[in-house]
Order: sequence, then structure tokens, then C-alpha cells
Amino acid sequence: MRMVYLDNAATTPLLPEVREAMLPYLGEAFGNPSCLHDWGDKARGAMEEARSQVAQLIGANAEDIIFTGSGTESNNFAIKGLALAQQNKGKHIVVSAIEHFSVLHSAKTMEKLGFEVSLVPVDKSGVVDPHDVEHATKKDTILISIMHANGEVGTIEPIAEIARIARKNKVVFHTDAVATAGTIPVDVNELGVDALSLSGNQFYGPKGVGALWVRKGVRIMPLLDGGVQEGGRRAGTENVPAIVGLGKAAQVAQASMPARIKHLTQLRDRLLTKLPAKIDHVVVTGHPKNRLPGNASFCIEFIEGESMLMLLNMQGVAVTSGSACTSRALKASHVLIAMKLSHAIAQGSLLFSFGLDNTAEDVDHVLEVLPPIVDRLRQMSPLYSKFTKQTKEAK
Amino acid sequence: MRMVYLDNAATTPLLPEVREAMLPYLGEAFGNPSCLHDWGDKARGAMEEARSQVAQLIGANAEDIIFTGSGTESNNFAIKGLALAQQNKGKHIVVSAIEHFSVLHSAKTMEKLGFEVSLVPVDKSGVVDPHDVEHATKKDTILISIMHANGEVGTIEPIAEIARIARKNKVVFHTDAVATAGTIPVDVNELGVDALSLSGNQFYGPKGVGALWVRKGVRIMPLLDGGVQEGGRRAGTENVPAIVGLGKAAQVAQASMPARIKHLTQLRDRLLTKLPAKIDHVVVTGHPKNRLPGNASFCIEFIEGESMLMLLNMQGVAVTSGSACTSRALKASHVLIAMKLSHAIAQGSLLFSFGLDNTAEDVDHVLEVLPPIVDRLRQMSPLYSKFTKQTKEAK
Repeated sequence: MRMVYLDNAATTPLLPEVREAMLPYLGEAFGNPSCLHDWGDKARGAMEEARSQVAQLIGANAEDIIFTGSGTESNNFAIKGLALAQQNKGKHIVVSAIEHFSVLHSAKTMEKLGFEVSLVPVDKSGVVDPHDVEHATKKDTILISIMHANGEVGTIEPIAEIARIARKNKVVFHTDAVATAGTIPVDVNELGVDALSLSGNQFYGPKGVGALWVRKGVRIMPLLDGGVQEGGRRAGTENVPAIVGLGKAAQVAQASMPARIKHLTQLRDRLLTKLPAKIDHVVVTGHPKNRLPGNASFCIEFIEGESMLMLLNMQGVAVTSGSACTSRALKASHVLIAMKLSHAIAQGSLLFSFGLDNTAEDVDHVLEVLPPIVDRLRQMSPLYSKFTKQTKEAK
Repeated sequence: MRMVYLDNAATTPLLPEVREAMLPYLGEAFGNPSCLHDWGDKARGAMEEARSQVAQLIGANAEDIIFTGSGTESNNFAIKGLALAQQNKGKHIVVSAIEHFSVLHSAKTMEKLGFEVSLVPVDKSGVVDPHDVEHATKKDTILISIMHANGEVGTIEPIAEIARIARKNKVVFHTDAVATAGTIPVDVNELGVDALSLSGNQFYGPKGVGALWVRKGVRIMPLLDGGVQEGGRRAGTENVPAIVGLGKAAQVAQASMPARIKHLTQLRDRLLTKLPAKIDHVVVTGHPKNRLPGNASFCIEFIEGESMLMLLNMQGVAVTSGSACTSRALKASHVLIAMKLSHAIAQGSLLFSFGLDNTAEDVDHVLEVLPPIVDRLRQMSPLYSKFTKQTKEAK
């Protein structure tokens, strides 16, 4: 059976050169970077090289990169750590309604600690209007967090514009760039943000490692207390092999980004244009133009996404319905609901996220196997028979 | 030059079989365990096998194991998450004065959030007296955290006795078993604890992974908010290769524990008995009997530990002065100070931590190279010349 992995938004495979870079640190070079001897020095040297590589990817200074254990940890650290460090100035936080749950639920935790949180809406393409951010910003607003792009629907947000509003109001501005760093150009100064989260396993680096960049001079409280690692900002023995892998992945991503974007955009557009021609009642979700190169997301009406992905899996095709982090919660995506899609339509969510190994044949395989699956499921769908009956009656 | 690694308390190398177990998950089996397709299923299956292996090591149920990113994260999660979840019953926390900073500094953070923290002292061997824990426990005490063993001085604490006190007072009891799990027998029911932290890189497993076991029915607030991974208790894409490695390391540790303990105890005792015979004014720190099998810790008077370890490193010998997590802070160890050693003596701290690859020849190598280093440094030490002058005058 042809195996087609189209779930690169959930996690990407390791590049062979990334794995090669990691292997010595899973072997002889096993030292703890905090130690004052040769084993420690070697680990520390490799870690600092990785820090430079990650910094270069996002146009930052290496000393402002803090390694974490995941994109989720970076987002928790940003929301909780930045809010707690600025709380003498106010206790109001602004986030968008379509943030990843690691941002949204961190903000909820801050509410329990006495902070106030405002959710900024999005339009039907998932775009945050900078004016809405401006209106939500108050005298006691101390933190704004808007994601660079949404991994579920692919929409890229107007971060630079929002950053100007944040700066004008002297509010710290964080962006969750987990879906973009290593995939499309990300430059902290062009974006004008104060803090930025990224994750290794989104661009062919390892799991178990992420980073938070915090602009020099912006205060942040540690999320993990303990030793003096990462300049006293994140305690715990550093995950050296994963950090080295993240650095290598950053370096390769930077060098090959234009070619990667071209490849992924071709595959994405092939599916975005051809699938609605093959299946009736398909809604393309997310922004038609300003979207992640590898993201083709749809809602297929009258069917539950879960059943489609089970049947696709039986045909060797791996996709997801919404975000990986919430797939086991089996709820309609908060992103699609915020985009004013009805629960009924949002339940038919299907996300194809392309990767470097995918080909046009993979797209054509989906175009071949998905329509009969949709037909089969619709034949069993009470919603669909109700709809067709109504349509016939109307004629 | 003979290279001798005697810093296994800072981190252990990966066992070859652990690395082998991890490699497939750094390759083709790269899936995200949250995903509902074959790639996800394979990753999830491997992760759940690892969960069982870790559970078996500590006599626990697999479903009560929560994977984390480090021992430090486990301790932060335990202190902050258990305290926040029990705060309706009270806001008093009891910890010992010699806890790892990931416990002590987490307790400090809770103080900032309105909790009260009591530090229980230790005797000159580093032992916590259970009566002191009982005296510190009040009506509003909701959490006691005492480490199973101290990695710096090796002292093993009377956890089962303290657990009885905690249970009698209906207080949740956490133990930091980072220094013991995988090294000496650890059974959560024999110890009688409610929560227990462990770390992979302490017993030949990978960095970047730890675990927190929480007894069924004991409530804990997440430290990392977001997706529904780990039963909704710890969000973030799971570090599958590292989790698989942790599981394998747990399995091997359990099978080979008696042989390992025998080997390490022989090396430890060889150094503990022979070093004071070779060098004057040496204090063995920690408990003479109830100590970690691989831990030989000393204070060498009239010298700073840092200078000794630099010179030892030049001879190919890797040791540490205090804990790795704080070595770059260059302060006298809070553990030794709590054991009533003077700052002057505590500064001469030297920790030799043996591992599976060490031999009796490694011990003899230390016994050969260390005395001339000590002589050389003492000749430059004003404290030592003052002392010898006083001794001569006394004669």
C-alpha cells in the first residue's frame, strides 16, 4: 500500500543530517553543559553553536534565545513568565480567539491568578484585525500574544502591524511562531515583537525541544525554577542532543527555505484547487492567499472529520482533523468556531499538511481515494439525507 | 592521557541498548502519539510500553506516570502543581534545607504566591529527623517534600518514616527520587509517598526526559497548559525517542540493580577509605553508611573545590564541586552549609560519583593524581600557611 504522510503540522520527520548531528551527543559526547570539565565543555560548545544557529534563523542575538522542552513550554513560559514579570504595571492580557491551547489555557491559568484576559476575534478567513487589538488594549494591558500563523487553517496574521500598536501602547508583544519559524521567513526585528516561540519538530528537527526568544531588556519570570541554566531563566539539565538537532534543523531550514516554500506551495495549491472540483459541498478554510505554504485545510460538509481520517488511514494516508494536541479531545475546533463556521460544518474538518518528502503523486492519490470515502460516509449520514431530501423538495 | 569520568551525578552516558531502542523513533517512527493514524499509533504504543517500564521500576501503576522534560520539571510540577491543587485546605509547605534547588526555588515561588514555607534542618550527616518534620507540620500544612537521597553528599533519607507522619496528618507527601530511582530500590508503596520525581539521565537514560508519579486520587494542577497529552496533566508533543529511552533504561536498571550496586559500592568504599589516608585534613561528607552506592564526597580543607577540579580535569579526571545545576553559580553548597560545615570547609567540596564503566584502577588513578594537586594548591593557600604557622607555634 502506498503510504502518504500528510500530517506535517503534527510533527515532521527528522532530516538525516539532523539525526547525524545529534548522534555524537547520544554517544561519547554525553556531558552535562553545566560541568566545569572537558565533557561539560564539549556539550556546552555544541549547545552554544546551536543557539547561534537558531538565533540566525530568526534574526536574533544568540544570548536572547532560551531553549525549552517544546513549543507548548515556550508558550506557557511566555504567557505566564511575561505576565508575572510585568504585573506591577497592570494585569490585563490580550490574545486572539484562535491561539493554540498552550497560549489560551495559559491565559486562563493567569485569570485564576487574578489577571484579566480579552479574546480578540478573527474574520471568516481567520485573520486578526489590528484595530480589534487596538480596541482591546487598555491602560493596564501588559501583554499581547497573537500567533504568527495558525497551524490548523494556515492563515498568516499581520504581526508587524499589531506590533506597532503594541509598541505605541508600550505593551509587551509575544508571537507564537511555532507554525512559521523554519517554514517561512521570520525575523524578530521585521516583525517588531518582544518575544517569540518556536518548536523543533515543526521543521524537521527533533521533538522535546523548543525555544523562546525574549528581546533584551524585557523581563520574564522563570517557569522552571532551580539551577542557573539558560542564564537563570530556565532550570534543568539541557537536552543537548535535541538542542544540537534544533540548531542543525534551523541552519538547513534557513539555507533551503525558498526551495522548500516553492515545493510546498505547489502541492498545497494543487490540492486546494482540485479537491473542491472532485467533491461537492467542500469549504476551503483559512485565508485564500496569506497562508502557510504546506497547509491545505477544508471542511467537508455532512461528515465528521474523525471518520474520514480513519478511512484515509486505512488507505495509508495520514491526515488530521484539527490540531494534533487536541485530536483526542474529539471536540469541534475552537479555531473554526471562532471563524464563524457552524459546529456541523466544523466537524468535517480535514487538514492536509505537506512536507519535503511529498510529491504531486501524493496529492493525486488523495484526489483518488478521498471522493469514494466521502460518498460512502455521506450515504450513512442522516444530515446529508436530510439535506438531499430538502434539495429535491425545493426543486 | 587516561580519561576518567567520575561525574555520574551530573549526568550518566547512554547505555548502548538504550540508544538502540531510541534510534527508530529518531528515524521512520517519527509520528506524534496524539495522532489518530498509523504513525501516531506506533509512537503511542512505544510510549505506553515505556510508561509500563518506568512504572515497574518504582512499583507503580502505568497510568499514574506523567512524563516530563527533566527531573527539574518533575520537581517544579510537584511543588507548584500539588500546592495549587490543595490550596483550599491550607497554604503551608514543608521541605528540607538540603533539597535540590528545583524544589527549594519552586517553594520560594509559592511563597511569592502567598504560601508559607518551613525548612526542616538536617544533622551533620545530612539526615532529616522525622520528628523535625512532625514538629514543622501544622493544621494548614498541605504538602511535605523531602528528597529520597541527596545527590551531592549521598545521604539517604528515612522516607518511609516521614511518610507515616505525612499520612497521619493527611498531608500530601512528595519525594524527589532523582538521585535514587534506577540506582537503588525505589517502591512508591514501600516508601508510602504520594508523588515521586525521577530523571532519565541519572541512570543511563537520555537527557530531556523525566517523570512524575502521582498516586491515583491525589489532585495536581498542570504546570504546562495546552493540549490533552498525558491525561490532560502535561501538555506538549511528547518527546517519544527520549521517553522510549527512559523506559529501556528503567528496564535495564531494574534487571541489573543488585550487580550495579555491588560494583559501585566497592569503588565508593575504596575511595572513601583510601583518600583520607593519602591526604591530611579531609572531611568525608554525608552519611557514613546510608549513602548512594556511587557517591564519595569530601571536603578538602584550605582549598577551593573549583581549583581542584580544574587541575583534575587537566589530568583527564572529571569530577564536580557540589551539584552540576549550580556549579556555574560558584557559591558554597547550601547542602554543606545546612550540614553545619563552615563556609571555609564547604568551599573545598569535591564529589566523585561513580558509574558502571568505572574500575578500581580509576580510583587508584585519583589516589595518585589528587595528593600532588592538593599539595600544590595548599602551598598557594594563605589559609593553609596561617594554619601551619599556628600549629608550629602551638608546639
